[in-house]
Amino acid sequence: MLVEFSIVPIGRAESMGDELARVLRLVDESGLPYRAGPMGTVVEGRWDEVMALVRRCHEEVLATSPRAITTIKIDDRPSKPMDRIEEKIRSVERRLGRELRK
Amino acid sequence: MLVEFSIVPIGRAESMGDELARVLRLVDESGLPYRAGPMGTVVEGRWDEVMALVRRCHEEVLATSPRAITTIKIDDRPSKPMDRIEEKIRSVERRLGRELRK
Amino acid sequence: MLVEFSIVPIGRAESMGDELARVLRLVDESGLPYRAGPMGTVVEGRWDEVMALVRRCHEEVLATSPRAITTIKIDDRPSKPMDRIEEKIRSVERRLGRELRK
Amino acid sequence: MLVEFSIVPIGRAESMGDELARVLRLVDESGLPYRAGPMGTVVEGRWDEVMALVRRCHEEVLATSPRAITTIKIDDRPSKPMDRIEEKIRSVERRLGRELRK
Repeated sequence: MLVEFSIVPIGRAESMGDELARVLRLVDESGLPYRAGPMGTVVEGRWDEVMALVRRCHEEVLATSPRAITTIKIDDRPSKPMDRIEEKIRSVERRLGRELRK
Repeated sequence: MLVEFSIVPIGRAESMGDELARVLRLVDESGLPYRAGPMGTVVEGRWDEVMALVRRCHEEVLATSPRAITTIKIDDRPSKPMDRIEEKIRSVERRLGRELRK
Repeated sequence: MLVEFSIVPIGRAESMGDELARVLRLVDESGLPYRAGPMGTVVEGRWDEVMALVRRCHEEVLATSPRAITTIKIDDRPSKPMDRIEEKIRSVERRLGRELRK
Repeated sequence: MLVEFSIVPIGRAESMGDELARVLRLVDESGLPYRAGPMGTVVEGRWDEVMALVRRCHEEVLATSPRAITTIKIDDRPSKPMDRIEEKIRSVERRLGRELRK
C-alpha cells in the first residue's frame, strides 16, 4: 500500500526544519521506497512495516516537542503489485504529457 | 492519544452505509472510548490499540471493496491524562457557551 | 456539501484553546449548520459560503500566529438534499443501534 | 501559501486515471507553480487563486461522478516570500543529503 504522512510538532518554533531532518533520516534508514515532497512523505510497503516507521517518526518528533499532530493517508489496492509509488509518478507524468500535447 | 479516522471504499456504489455500519460495529466492540461524527470517528487510546482497531476496520472495508483510502489524524500530547475525548468536547462546548454569551 | 475543517496554529504554545474559541465564535456567527467535535468542526453549506467561513477562521488564527496549517475535507454529493449533517449523524446512530442489537 | 489537494471520485470504477488526467490539465493550465505527486498535488499561490483552481478541479470530477471527497491541506506562513514550493523541495533534499552523509 501507499502511505503519505506528515508530522507537525506543536508548542515549538515556527520552523520545523530540524524535526523534518530527523524524520527523513528515519524514513531513509527504513529501506522502504519513498518520495519526500513539499507537504509530506509517501512511503510504500505493507501495513506493519509502514506503520512501524510512521510510529518511529512520530515518537522522534515527540522526543523534542510536547505535542504532535500526525496525518496519515493510506491508499490500499491489494490487487495491484508493489512498486506503485514509481508507477503512479510515471502515470501522472504520462497523463500530464499527453494532456498538455492536446 | 486522540485519533480520528475515516475509510472510503473505492470502486463501489456511491453510498457507503453498509461499510460504515460494519466499521462502527468494530469500533464499538473495541471497548475504546469513541465519538462517531458525520465525517469520521474519533477514538482514544494508546498507539497499539488504536492502530490495531483502525487496521481491522480498514481490512473489513477491503473485504468487500477492491480499494480503500483511509485517513488517520493523530493528536498526541503525552503530558495530558487520558479521557481527553470527553474533556475536549466539554472544552469546545464551554468555550462556545462563553463566546456566545459575549 | 459537508465540510470538516481544523486549523493548527504553529509557533505558539502547546495549547490551542484561545484560537479554538475564536474560530468557534466565527463558525457560530456564520449561521451555517455545524457540529463541533474533538478533532474538527463539520459545517454544511454551499462552496462559497463554507469556504468564505473557513478563510475567515484561517485568517483569525493567523492574526496571532506566524503560521497555520488548515485541513479541509469536503464530501460533496449534489444529488442529496441539504440537511445532510443531521441526516448523517442520525444514520450513524441508527446503524450503531442496529449493529449493537445483533 | 502552499496547498496540497486530492480529489477522490466515489461511485465509479476502482481506477481514477481519467479524473486525474483532467484535474492535472486544469492545474497545469492555471499557470500556478505546482508539483504533482503520487498521492496529491501541491500548488502555490494566494488563497483566491488556489481555491478557485481546487473548485474547478472538484467540479470537473463531479461532472462524471455522483460524489467526490476532496481533501485540502494549507500551509500558510505569511512572513515567507513566495517560491516556497521549490524552496521546500530543495530544503528536503539538502537535509536528506546532509543526514545521509552522517
